Amino acid sequence: MDHTIIFQPSGRRGLVPEGTTILEAARRLGVGIEAVCGEQLVCGKCRVKVMEGKFPKEDITSSMGHLSGLDEKEVKVLQRKESEENIRLACSTKIYGDVLVFVPEASRTGKQVVSKAAGKIKVKLKPAVRKYYVELPLPSLDDPLGDFERLEEALAKAHGAKKLSIDYRVLQQLPDAIRKGDWKVTATVWQGREVIRVEPGKVESSIGLAVDIGTTTCAGYLTDLNTGEVLATESMMNPQVRYGEDVMSRITYCMMNEGTGLKELQQTIIEGLNTIAKQAAKKAGCSPEDISEMTLVGNTAMHHILLGINPEYMGVAPFTPALHESVDVKADRFGIHILPAGNVHVMPIEAGFVGADNVGCLIADQPHKRKEMTLLIDIGTNGELVLGNKEKLISCSCATGPALEGAQIEFGMRAAPGAIERIKINPKTLEATYKVIGNDEWSDGKTNMQAKGICGSAIIDAIAEMFKAGILRKNGQINMDLKSPRLRKGDKGVTEYVLAWKHETSIDQDIVVNQKDVRAIQLAKGALYSGCLIMMRKLGIRKFDRLAVAGAFGSHIDKVEAMVIGMFPDCDLKKVEYIGNAAGDGARIALLNVDRRREANEIARKVEYVELALEEDFNDRFGEAMQFPHMFDEFPHLKGILPGKAQEAA
Amino acid sequence: MDHTIIFQPSGRRGLVPEGTTILEAARRLGVGIEAVCGEQLVCGKCRVKVMEGKFPKEDITSSMGHLSGLDEKEVKVLQRKESEENIRLACSTKIYGDVLVFVPEASRTGKQVVSKAAGKIKVKLKPAVRKYYVELPLPSLDDPLGDFERLEEALAKAHGAKKLSIDYRVLQQLPDAIRKGDWKVTATVWQGREVIRVEPGKVESSIGLAVDIGTTTCAGYLTDLNTGEVLATESMMNPQVRYGEDVMSRITYCMMNEGTGLKELQQTIIEGLNTIAKQAAKKAGCSPEDISEMTLVGNTAMHHILLGINPEYMGVAPFTPALHESVDVKADRFGIHILPAGNVHVMPIEAGFVGADNVGCLIADQPHKRKEMTLLIDIGTNGELVLGNKEKLISCSCATGPALEGAQIEFGMRAAPGAIERIKINPKTLEATYKVIGNDEWSDGKTNMQAKGICGSAIIDAIAEMFKAGILRKNGQINMDLKSPRLRKGDKGVTEYVLAWKHETSIDQDIVVNQKDVRAIQLAKGALYSGCLIMMRKLGIRKFDRLAVAGAFGSHIDKVEAMVIGMFPDCDLKKVEYIGNAAGDGARIALLNVDRRREANEIARKVEYVELALEEDFNDRFGEAMQFPHMFDEFPHLKGILPGKAQEAA
Repeated sequence: MDHTIIFQPSGRRGLVPEGTTILEAARRLGVGIEAVCGEQLVCGKCRVKVMEGKFPKEDITSSMGHLSGLDEKEVKVLQRKESEENIRLACSTKIYGDVLVFVPEASRTGKQVVSKAAGKIKVKLKPAVRKYYVELPLPSLDDPLGDFERLEEALAKAHGAKKLSIDYRVLQQLPDAIRKGDWKVTATVWQGREVIRVEPGKVESSIGLAVDIGTTTCAGYLTDLNTGEVLATESMMNPQVRYGEDVMSRITYCMMNEGTGLKELQQTIIEGLNTIAKQAAKKAGCSPEDISEMTLVGNTAMHHILLGINPEYMGVAPFTPALHESVDVKADRFGIHILPAGNVHVMPIEAGFVGADNVGCLIADQPHKRKEMTLLIDIGTNGELVLGNKEKLISCSCATGPALEGAQIEFGMRAAPGAIERIKINPKTLEATYKVIGNDEWSDGKTNMQAKGICGSAIIDAIAEMFKAGILRKNGQINMDLKSPRLRKGDKGVTEYVLAWKHETSIDQDIVVNQKDVRAIQLAKGALYSGCLIMMRKLGIRKFDRLAVAGAFGSHIDKVEAMVIGMFPDCDLKKVEYIGNAAGDGARIALLNVDRRREANEIARKVEYVELALEEDFNDRFGEAMQFPHMFDEFPHLKGILPGKAQEAA
Repeated sequence: MDHTIIFQPSGRRGLVPEGTTILEAARRLGVGIEAVCGEQLVCGKCRVKVMEGKFPKEDITSSMGHLSGLDEKEVKVLQRKESEENIRLACSTKIYGDVLVFVPEASRTGKQVVSKAAGKIKVKLKPAVRKYYVELPLPSLDDPLGDFERLEEALAKAHGAKKLSIDYRVLQQLPDAIRKGDWKVTATVWQGREVIRVEPGKVESSIGLAVDIGTTTCAGYLTDLNTGEVLATESMMNPQVRYGEDVMSRITYCMMNEGTGLKELQQTIIEGLNTIAKQAAKKAGCSPEDISEMTLVGNTAMHHILLGINPEYMGVAPFTPALHESVDVKADRFGIHILPAGNVHVMPIEAGFVGADNVGCLIADQPHKRKEMTLLIDIGTNGELVLGNKEKLISCSCATGPALEGAQIEFGMRAAPGAIERIKINPKTLEATYKVIGNDEWSDGKTNMQAKGICGSAIIDAIAEMFKAGILRKNGQINMDLKSPRLRKGDKGVTEYVLAWKHETSIDQDIVVNQKDVRAIQLAKGALYSGCLIMMRKLGIRKFDRLAVAGAFGSHIDKVEAMVIGMFPDCDLKKVEYIGNAAGDGARIALLNVDRRREANEIARKVEYVELALEEDFNDRFGEAMQFPHMFDEFPHLKGILPGKAQEAA
């Protein structure tokens, strides 16, 4: 008898025979779970959390009954609290019923390759936080001036810093710090107005942390505030993933669990931020307390939840956010474990659906300072578009869903070792060849490539190549009239194209792209493309001068293949720029320059938000945009790129 | 066999026979302990805490062995935690050895009469906190402006409040508050720049709390910020009293218990402030959350401990405080339970020994705005002096000790019912007559006046009357050459004057003033008087135009008697003004007018502090000042007041 197992957060699912261990099932389905000790129940690396799943309601509480009982050795490895929270070891837990299993970040194999690497940014150094070393005159009975005023006078004399206040907690440590430093101290001053730290002696190192809170991935950039250099980059899965893969499911969680849900989600991301701060500091050989300021970007939902603001009203018309402006909060009031008196700067948001991440992109790419008409696309779990130049900027949000990132795709997976990342299909033979992350060779159809699944960029390749080879019709249907062993009907009668044969994979099954996958990508790219068209109509333009593709995922897309499937309007491919994780870059820029923070607040209010759903032509455009490109009138720059078969299909 | 029992915080001590209950001992010694149920072990009102005391070191831990064991009924009344903390019921606990007992505020009988009543103050209303009612335009898809920016625009339009920020926690409540109020809300704005509360609908009441943290007594004035009216006054014993009666013993406690002592003391006063806020709010029929701001005054030690700053360095030369300037801290960061985003304003201090209480006096009395030369005396547990006018102000601190408040005086007690408050001695018969608080009649030597002890103001009367009657020589010695049954040698050979006979008292013993009491007062008044003389020399003046006596205690002193004993230099008694609890008035002024806060910071830095101990003539002056006045050259205004006997004594 077979049972269904679903793994979160990847969404991978499949049937496995009764008695299979969770670890074995994970391997079969291409879900990477660490297992260092060789299933000796010693290492404890394969911890997973058993969650409720798609079971009849009455079964939920007995979901543990769907699994083998706790092994004696397992009991030794797990802490009592863990057992109570349904944590199990994947290697020893056998499946006796349908289960939904969450694989925590710590148990996942393979470091994510698409880390949100720090790009090169040009920014004048003008951080909010500065350190000043001063030597204080010793007090005497003739000069019994208070410690703080003594420090203030010395700072004014040496560095011109005037009219300072001092954080309450720093004040508490001031007398001892001054005396420990023998009247020589380094004062950390925020925004030229508040003393947020006093260290004995001379301390030059000044550190900040910029964090990009993505719906799926969070990335922190520990930055030297004296040089602008990135000292350490630390990425992690957004721990809120366990409350839902996408933004709407997390908002729903808040609404369904009034009073507690929001707090839970907020606490989860705050803990995540604390982990990033701790790990990044460790990498750089400093303490989290040495981080004097933190800047944060994220989409509007991440923004609201982070600040503990009910995101509910943003999800319903007229989609008003709680505020647009940036927010500054003391780290200790926020529960963020950096310098307690340090500031946490949450960047501004534009509108209900265009968040601080987009503002980050804007201050990194600065389309508002350019003459050229720029289309900026930030593809994350949602797609955010900005179109315009220094005259005017408009923005919109497209409900692309997570398909473009490989989620909700049958064999979709993160960009980790084993993921197929590039695909070519021979239009004549309909044979596929591909590259797997961690292996420089292209597949030859014989070698076991240890393929596990398909990552986001390869999904676009696959669709584009299938379209160019005529496997897909312009409406997206798989053309079963073609003859190839790779084209077939799958288990449930869903048509599919085999990308990698079982013997090439490490998951003991064929890796395929099926009709459902194609539809998911069509919806996603249709949302983006129609968004672009409506925006262009709004500005009354027929073409733009420059396409800036932001987002860690965006950086890995093949721009030709992306235009082949019609993800964005026609343009000169030479004018397509990958601007990397521009949201994260924006957070770093804000960390390094206070004037750019002001610019961020200004631009956030200046961008005009277009509510796509309100546009009359939305449905028509969306319907059209779902199709694959078929007219060279529409995509002149594809001329000579689209091969014969695609034209035939058209 | 008799045992010594000492009661804190009154300091009353005495010998009682073995087997006496603590309650009985308290009655005998004039210590008021509540006992409502008639010793039926039911009401639990007579809870006392058994402390370590003046026992041989090895006895400290076994101090419970000096008492009868826990009675079965007692166990029922007390909570387990209380027993562990050595809380006992006074009515059932018998004495079998020397003990030191602390009587908590809640168990003390009689409300303190010398409450720090709110004086009349003249102040232009310009509070830091203002409430604005606004009606917001409803958002729509065409106008999806964020909630905060919507509020900000409405506030700017209606009230001109611009460039606002919003407290992080208030932001969290903003979307719900606005919608609950159907887009009509009242915003509380601090310093014209930060929104610290948003209430649905129209709310007019705006409330603040000014608190005077005395070493012994704390008084809170719940104040209507719209009218300046005091809505409720709430006084309590400073709960830090259990760590020591005076400032130095509390500083010592901090030093002896490094790492924990300061935190304990800080937590204790914060809890005290929370109690005051809660009780005052209850009296006025509002919630503590309705208190939008709190202003605080206190001497430098109270100031530092309140802020959690190590007070150690202030206690040793060169006596530098951690800071002079006022401090603003968010209530929730401070642990103060008023409006969480509300501000706690701690007023500035002048020098290591001249605190925010003195600054409070200055902004209340404003000697710095007067032409006349003012001598301002604030008598609390310490005596603080300011001398000067609008040209120049100097200040000093005199180590008066608590004797002037009736502490460390054999029969000294708080100004509560049963306390002798006025005394007259017939210079011919040497007979005394007195008034007791709670009784309008003067004693006749026969009636049982239910006298329990002598409060601070009466101590001065007693000394002055004894001096005028010739009972005291000018050097303070009791003149045993005089013949009177009231003049005798006490138990331990200490000479004493009987003020009230046993049959006139409720404590079943004679109430006396002994030689030690006289010495204590001599030291206190000597410290004050010599301070005044040195200050006058510093300013090069021989007389001042005005004497302002501040302090709750100061208000109860008979100015003639005070000048008779030479508490302050000679002056026209018509020019003596009682300015009441000016420190508390200053806190209220700061609460009601932000300009006066600036004035406070300015004046705090402007006053020149004189370190008396550094003055060459300090010892000489102090020695002379200990004497009682004897030359009409020195005190011309006493002419006709001092009777013959005093002159003879001189």
